[in-house]
Amino acid sequence: MDTIIPFGIPLWAELAAVALGALQGALFAGALTGRRIDVLGAVLVGIGVALGGSLLRDVLLGEPPVVIYGPWYVLVAAVSALAGLSLQRLFARLDPVILPLDALVIGLFGAIGTSKALALGVPPVPAVFVGAAAAVGGSVLRDVTLNLPVALLHVGSLYAVAAAGGAALLVALVALGVPVLGAAVAAVVVTTVVRLLAVRYGWQFPDQQALVVRRRPR
Amino acid sequence: MDTIIPFGIPLWAELAAVALGALQGALFAGALTGRRIDVLGAVLVGIGVALGGSLLRDVLLGEPPVVIYGPWYVLVAAVSALAGLSLQRLFARLDPVILPLDALVIGLFGAIGTSKALALGVPPVPAVFVGAAAAVGGSVLRDVTLNLPVALLHVGSLYAVAAAGGAALLVALVALGVPVLGAAVAAVVVTTVVRLLAVRYGWQFPDQQALVVRRRPR
Amino acid sequence: MDTIIPFGIPLWAELAAVALGALQGALFAGALTGRRIDVLGAVLVGIGVALGGSLLRDVLLGEPPVVIYGPWYVLVAAVSALAGLSLQRLFARLDPVILPLDALVIGLFGAIGTSKALALGVPPVPAVFVGAAAAVGGSVLRDVTLNLPVALLHVGSLYAVAAAGGAALLVALVALGVPVLGAAVAAVVVTTVVRLLAVRYGWQFPDQQALVVRRRPR
Repeated sequence: MDTIIPFGIPLWAELAAVALGALQGALFAGALTGRRIDVLGAVLVGIGVALGGSLLRDVLLGEPPVVIYGPWYVLVAAVSALAGLSLQRLFARLDPVILPLDALVIGLFGAIGTSKALALGVPPVPAVFVGAAAAVGGSVLRDVTLNLPVALLHVGSLYAVAAAGGAALLVALVALGVPVLGAAVAAVVVTTVVRLLAVRYGWQFPDQQALVVRRRPR
Repeated sequence: MDTIIPFGIPLWAELAAVALGALQGALFAGALTGRRIDVLGAVLVGIGVALGGSLLRDVLLGEPPVVIYGPWYVLVAAVSALAGLSLQRLFARLDPVILPLDALVIGLFGAIGTSKALALGVPPVPAVFVGAAAAVGGSVLRDVTLNLPVALLHVGSLYAVAAAGGAALLVALVALGVPVLGAAVAAVVVTTVVRLLAVRYGWQFPDQQALVVRRRPR
Repeated sequence: MDTIIPFGIPLWAELAAVALGALQGALFAGALTGRRIDVLGAVLVGIGVALGGSLLRDVLLGEPPVVIYGPWYVLVAAVSALAGLSLQRLFARLDPVILPLDALVIGLFGAIGTSKALALGVPPVPAVFVGAAAAVGGSVLRDVTLNLPVALLHVGSLYAVAAAGGAALLVALVALGVPVLGAAVAAVVVTTVVRLLAVRYGWQFPDQQALVVRRRPR
């Protein structure tokens, strides 16, 4: 698998994803009105959501973080977070637009992370893990730094399921000989659609209690 | 110290340790019944407990994480976590077996981490730190992601004391010229025994308040 | 910018900063008297505060952590944390001395982090981010492991503002051709003074709610 080229997306599309992550992170922090988070704090949460997934991906892969060595990521995240804070009312009205875009962003980050892992020679199963981590890392970082329960561990998100499903599909298609670009497109579509349908129809993954096999004495 | 070879254990033994960590992590998350953690969430906690110590060790050492570049770690952790969730009642009865195995796992991860640090040229004191971090990293990651107080900081664990003691012994023995394999075996025994005796006899490290030197005006 | 030499400070000064960080971390943990944190736990918090910023800096830069490969950092941090715990009453009286020293430490860690990032070819904006993260990383690690709200996200700290301001000044001066040593000294002075004046006069950064642009229907 040494010749796999990571699924690259144009820089402008990656920066759009970063901007959207920062926007959402800042709006999330901004909605915590009882917490007295200051302006810089909310901007930092936005930057964390925007860059956390990429950072986690590169730390897991032992690679220099591209969001630090690239000139635009931190700047775009900071400006977008600040804009999100300033225009909270405006963006609140745009929710029907932002949700699909966010689902797309999860898919994109997951596909980039999975294909980068494969390109570095990471075996299939851990490559899925890295891809899923890249997709959800920003959300985890947000919850940990805000001292909140990590949302994706709990019933009701399907965030992680959608991300892991897309990453697994990408790895499976590449193993079957599909070119990485095609596999990545399929993965992005699956992650985005699963996430949107889950929100639309209230799909949930079962509470872990449902798995308990009741064993009665015979 | 440049010629120290890390204390390697057979892959099957390392994977057994990973499986046990994942099992315990999933059972721990599974016992939090009021939290509505979903199946994937509990599996992720299990993977975190199983791989967190190794990840932390390799990040501290600036090395590519072996649990990502090796093909089996994530898979074994995920399967074991899922089995743990499905068979919670069975494993609850196995507690008397699992506790000693867990103590052994802390010892093994600590010895692997300490000897890897020494092999990379890390000086003695930080090598103890890396070894102890490798032993307890999974437990810390579990508590942080579950938004719980980090257990090992608090009175009653001896988890960290046992890990640090074993790591310190390994470093001291290697400095005295003992081959790394022998030093590692001694370290594993010490960590395991200290941990088991602490649980058996309720040993505790003192509350930090006990250290306060009362200074009266003279 | 490939020829920028990191702003190096003498090892003794860096270790003094580490010692002060560990002292403060241990005193902070020691003041949480209702939490039953044990001696080793408080020492670990001290080590985390002392080394967390440097660790975060090197992880963000993808470099081997110097606090692990250098022989003295962990040892100095551990001894200082233990001393802080033992002499809590003494140090409580030294508060007027410790506050200015701590402000100086934030400034030093920020300047070291920013100049190291520039020396590795990190572009200006992410270099400011790395420098600010190096300055405040210990404080964030402390709050996350103690399961407390991350102080610097909230109104009233100016900790992060002072750190980011100093880092931004350093980058700007270097871009204008000022030698890195001079720029670093200016950055340290600015961070230290801003932090001290903020504490003295109760300066605060606004609550993020203040930024909300009220939009009425026209």
